[in-house]
Amino acid sequence: MKQVAEIFSQGEEIVCGQTVDSNAAWLSQQLVELGFTLKRHTAVGDNLEDLIALFTEIAGRADCCICTGGLGPTIDDLTAEAVSIASGQPLQFDAQVFAEIQEYYARRNRAMPEANRKQAMLPQSAVRIDNAYGTAPGFALQFKRCWFVFLPGVPSEMKQMFTALVRLQLLQRFPLQPDCLVTLRSIGIGESAIQQCLDGIQLPEGVQLGFRAAPDEVQTKLLFPGDFPESNKQACVADVAERIGAYVFAMDGLHEQQGDLLDVVAAAMSAKRCSLALMETASQGLLAAKCLGHKWLARVEVNLDWGRNTGAWSGQAVADDLQPIARVWAEQLKAREQTDFALVQLYSGSAEDYSDKDKTIVLYNALATPSGVVSTQLNAHGPLKHKQNQAALLALDLLRRYLQNKCL
Amino acid sequence: MKQVAEIFSQGEEIVCGQTVDSNAAWLSQQLVELGFTLKRHTAVGDNLEDLIALFTEIAGRADCCICTGGLGPTIDDLTAEAVSIASGQPLQFDAQVFAEIQEYYARRNRAMPEANRKQAMLPQSAVRIDNAYGTAPGFALQFKRCWFVFLPGVPSEMKQMFTALVRLQLLQRFPLQPDCLVTLRSIGIGESAIQQCLDGIQLPEGVQLGFRAAPDEVQTKLLFPGDFPESNKQACVADVAERIGAYVFAMDGLHEQQGDLLDVVAAAMSAKRCSLALMETASQGLLAAKCLGHKWLARVEVNLDWGRNTGAWSGQAVADDLQPIARVWAEQLKAREQTDFALVQLYSGSAEDYSDKDKTIVLYNALATPSGVVSTQLNAHGPLKHKQNQAALLALDLLRRYLQNKCL
Repeated sequence: MKQVAEIFSQGEEIVCGQTVDSNAAWLSQQLVELGFTLKRHTAVGDNLEDLIALFTEIAGRADCCICTGGLGPTIDDLTAEAVSIASGQPLQFDAQVFAEIQEYYARRNRAMPEANRKQAMLPQSAVRIDNAYGTAPGFALQFKRCWFVFLPGVPSEMKQMFTALVRLQLLQRFPLQPDCLVTLRSIGIGESAIQQCLDGIQLPEGVQLGFRAAPDEVQTKLLFPGDFPESNKQACVADVAERIGAYVFAMDGLHEQQGDLLDVVAAAMSAKRCSLALMETASQGLLAAKCLGHKWLARVEVNLDWGRNTGAWSGQAVADDLQPIARVWAEQLKAREQTDFALVQLYSGSAEDYSDKDKTIVLYNALATPSGVVSTQLNAHGPLKHKQNQAALLALDLLRRYLQNKCL
Repeated sequence: MKQVAEIFSQGEEIVCGQTVDSNAAWLSQQLVELGFTLKRHTAVGDNLEDLIALFTEIAGRADCCICTGGLGPTIDDLTAEAVSIASGQPLQFDAQVFAEIQEYYARRNRAMPEANRKQAMLPQSAVRIDNAYGTAPGFALQFKRCWFVFLPGVPSEMKQMFTALVRLQLLQRFPLQPDCLVTLRSIGIGESAIQQCLDGIQLPEGVQLGFRAAPDEVQTKLLFPGDFPESNKQACVADVAERIGAYVFAMDGLHEQQGDLLDVVAAAMSAKRCSLALMETASQGLLAAKCLGHKWLARVEVNLDWGRNTGAWSGQAVADDLQPIARVWAEQLKAREQTDFALVQLYSGSAEDYSDKDKTIVLYNALATPSGVVSTQLNAHGPLKHKQNQAALLALDLLRRYLQNKCL
């Protein structure tokens, strides 16, 4: 029997549409992975009657509800009061919560506003959930059928508290058998092309295959039942990864998380103590901006003239293939800057092609390495900002492939 | 008496968190502007019983509900069936809907799958809503207290149908008096500082004041009743804008939309046919990346050495104030590149300060103009990426202030 869970979000800014409720989606994914059946999302504004009615409804039909928002110090933060009235549990002063709020302000050399005292008032049976990054503590309590967990609406605080504390509490409280999700993260290949790679594959019974196109990558998801044998799982994942090929830059869910494309590149560059010089055209500084804080990036040139003076490349017969130019420039850049690697990005296509979401531009990346030059030629589609992001990521991906020994 | 509205979203992908429900926020904004009071958002999956229960609930408590999703041809698209059962109205074949679906396929030279026949079955009293961009028609009907409007879940189709058809139908059906929302968009000043600027202001009766901190700006919102006199409105907005001062870069809701900070700068730079040379340190290419597609950006330098060699600036007595250096460099850059403007961004603070979300870095921007140099000294707080974005925007904002004649 699966446990039924709901998500509840409080706030006028959500109900009136000023804020898109991304917390609900994030929490739902977490609960699905834990093994809950997700039934409903609800959002209401800062109205005491609406809140009381809603908590009472949910208390009768769900086993677990994660609630975000309404824990702040101002008069429109009504969650604790509404829960107290709905469940008939009086609010009590929690000395430890109060001490933590005082400490939060003390660390910042600021006086605690009197209004924050309110955040230390929790319903009688509430279990406190510490908030390491803000003043609003969370809490949890049983009300009729449902275990309610209340977290702040600020996404960074909510996610930190869920990951560090709530997740484990839920696993201890509920008889859950979490499925095991393995995610193969790829770049440079679309969802339908991946589906073709996997055409005809025989997955073991009970294993579910899914796909998700995120802005920076495509994810292939394999969901294994909690009791699936480990060695069979490894073999199944290896089979899928091999079929997709060098596009896969990371796998999550088998060992430790490897992070996104930049994390993967950064880990290898730091481990090998390598340095990179970079010349951007199509991405116009975006790749350098993404690398902020990474010391292996030694030199950046943003070449604005390339696109302007050569917007006609694609229309003229000057150069069908810009790879030779990119390769020579990469070698020159590496020699000039005396770095271990030099990455040069060129593109063909006019400014109009770049801006037109229905037109394609061609990206030419060349990477000069200690053992010669490697290069790629790839297309970027879609609106301007999407093409720009693809240009930055696909240049970085050439370096990733070299570092992972996956260059053809 | 305000009309109460709700938003309902159907789909497993929403309830399980694979898709963030941005439709709900968009529709809420539209309804608020029309004059509805938004009370609740709900999302459920593709389950007939859950859908019937929910439609019955909403029918008893709301005057209007906009529903998205569940109108497709597949077996998990259950909306029409659920509404039919809940309201006791049998499904009927709508010949015109069927003809339109057939035509959709005919235009694309594709055979209509038999499954699509289902989309022509609408509850008895339903009013059809044409879909110019897809096969799923929408429909609307009265069920108890509530006027339900059903639209497809695909955002582009939903928005087109709402804007072209539903909006007007709602204005005709409900006694609405749309409020008038004026938004003052500012940068470089926090929400609480704006509140202090407005301390003691006497707003006319019925005018509501609100704030919203977006990633790239802080918005001050003035909501005027629909029948508020125009000249008083202008005076009230002018008073608020003057109190906030030069931080305001745009005002929406009075005349045409001016867009975000970059839009405002780009419009002025293009109109005056000016060019800009830019040197970035703290934002490391992010400002150049934001300016993609704008030809007035003539030259970009990303200076990585600044932060590395001078991480100790803040610790040493070398330079308490980097403004003189930034000003000289801006003049030199302008002379070298022969542009109308040259913008130089420097900062003090070590790499550790930059990465530490609890530490502050100081940004020094200097702009060389045809009539001399102007400069600012500002703080950036928060996590790395937030500081980087602030650094890019605050540099751009110096140019905006000069272009709007708001430099001190």
